[in-house]
Amino acid sequence: MRIALLFAYDGAPFHGFAENLGVRTVALALREGLETVFRQPIEFNVAGRTDAGVHARHQVVTFDVPEQRLDPVRVRRALNKLCGPSIVVRGVARVADDVDARYSAVARSYRYHVRNAELPDPLRPAVWHVAGDLDLGAMAEATDVLVGEHDFSSFCRRIRTSPGRVAPSLVRRVHRAQWTTPDADGLFHLEIEARAFCHQMVRSIVGTVVAVGLGRRSVEDVARLLAARDRSRGVEVAPAHGLVLWSVSYERGLPF
Amino acid sequence: MRIALLFAYDGAPFHGFAENLGVRTVALALREGLETVFRQPIEFNVAGRTDAGVHARHQVVTFDVPEQRLDPVRVRRALNKLCGPSIVVRGVARVADDVDARYSAVARSYRYHVRNAELPDPLRPAVWHVAGDLDLGAMAEATDVLVGEHDFSSFCRRIRTSPGRVAPSLVRRVHRAQWTTPDADGLFHLEIEARAFCHQMVRSIVGTVVAVGLGRRSVEDVARLLAARDRSRGVEVAPAHGLVLWSVSYERGLPF
Repeated sequence: MRIALLFAYDGAPFHGFAENLGVRTVALALREGLETVFRQPIEFNVAGRTDAGVHARHQVVTFDVPEQRLDPVRVRRALNKLCGPSIVVRGVARVADDVDARYSAVARSYRYHVRNAELPDPLRPAVWHVAGDLDLGAMAEATDVLVGEHDFSSFCRRIRTSPGRVAPSLVRRVHRAQWTTPDADGLFHLEIEARAFCHQMVRSIVGTVVAVGLGRRSVEDVARLLAARDRSRGVEVAPAHGLVLWSVSYERGLPF
Repeated sequence: MRIALLFAYDGAPFHGFAENLGVRTVALALREGLETVFRQPIEFNVAGRTDAGVHARHQVVTFDVPEQRLDPVRVRRALNKLCGPSIVVRGVARVADDVDARYSAVARSYRYHVRNAELPDPLRPAVWHVAGDLDLGAMAEATDVLVGEHDFSSFCRRIRTSPGRVAPSLVRRVHRAQWTTPDADGLFHLEIEARAFCHQMVRSIVGTVVAVGLGRRSVEDVARLLAARDRSRGVEVAPAHGLVLWSVSYERGLPF
């Protein structure tokens, strides 16, 4: 039977999601918890492989276990004891055997949190502090350039492919991307949604759009960068700690 | 000449404010930064000595250095490079020689952040997660019992005094104490102000008032506890990570 897990995590204490020899990752902590609860090896697929330092409010994995009675509340409680407090399991549910956290997802949305103020706030560690005056109108224009279907090669860290293998397409469709208005404390965020993102795409978009806001680049630079389809043209990458995987949507089959 | 420093910190990575052999404390990090900038030993007085894990938005120290030209912006920048990112110096100013961060303060206010929800939120580490239904009306009533001038012996961790020395008075006047209304996410906080607080007083008040909210104690229990003037009567202490030193007021002499 297939089980889906909904969970959130603080990315700060982990070296990213994916398992990596010798370091503490979200996947390792979660797999160890699941293997303790289900008493068998577990392999899961995940909705969004987040980088080191990136947080998640709404992350999903699916995995298979032998047919059994499932007590979702008990499993959730046991996992939260084993994996907490930096990981919080929010929901556990049986799903149809063909539902996959990664391949069945039809949309992912991220939020990137910025605080525009003279000084950083040590009580907001999950926010990118940007000093200097920001031209919010130019930021909105630059962001609009990126909405829609484009080859995001300039905004993606290319995964190394084996010799002779075709590099995967970096064409992605951004459904929407919009900045909120800064509050009295200078806090605001980008909400961005796509079916899927390539590696470091949201952080590259934010870094480049903030450079426009600071007057270091123009909106036209961003359009040219996108058209160049070339990472080496020097995109700016915002730090990981401001980014949160905010939600993942499925066409059917997931109760959360 | 006397200098006042306004600063904020995330309490999580420190073992409290006061210096303590062998551990990283806010005072140690700050003193090392100040001694590097001013190139001499520095001793300071502080507005509020916070416990391990407690945060500060508005903390003040004062100290003396030989007469010199003071460039507050340069000093602030240098200190933030040396002490950041968990400590952020917000202001540096010369003050009158008789102004003291500790003894000239006429009011301190703290905020204690609670989130009332079924599950903790790993993206809000500086909040006490309380599950279960809270009776907010009873919490307000229990809090009101504590406003005004009382002997807070039941709510204070007594500092051990040397034999033969008189134990210091634990009479304090709470100017105001009020809970905000929980938002859609279950977040709310206590705002509490007094001229001074004794050790663990705010956390003891919060722990006990939340016990009233959960129905484990009555408002009358709190009144009896206060009247007993006896710590051993079993006050409940809320965790440190929800507490923030929010502001400190001075009658005169401080520009921030």
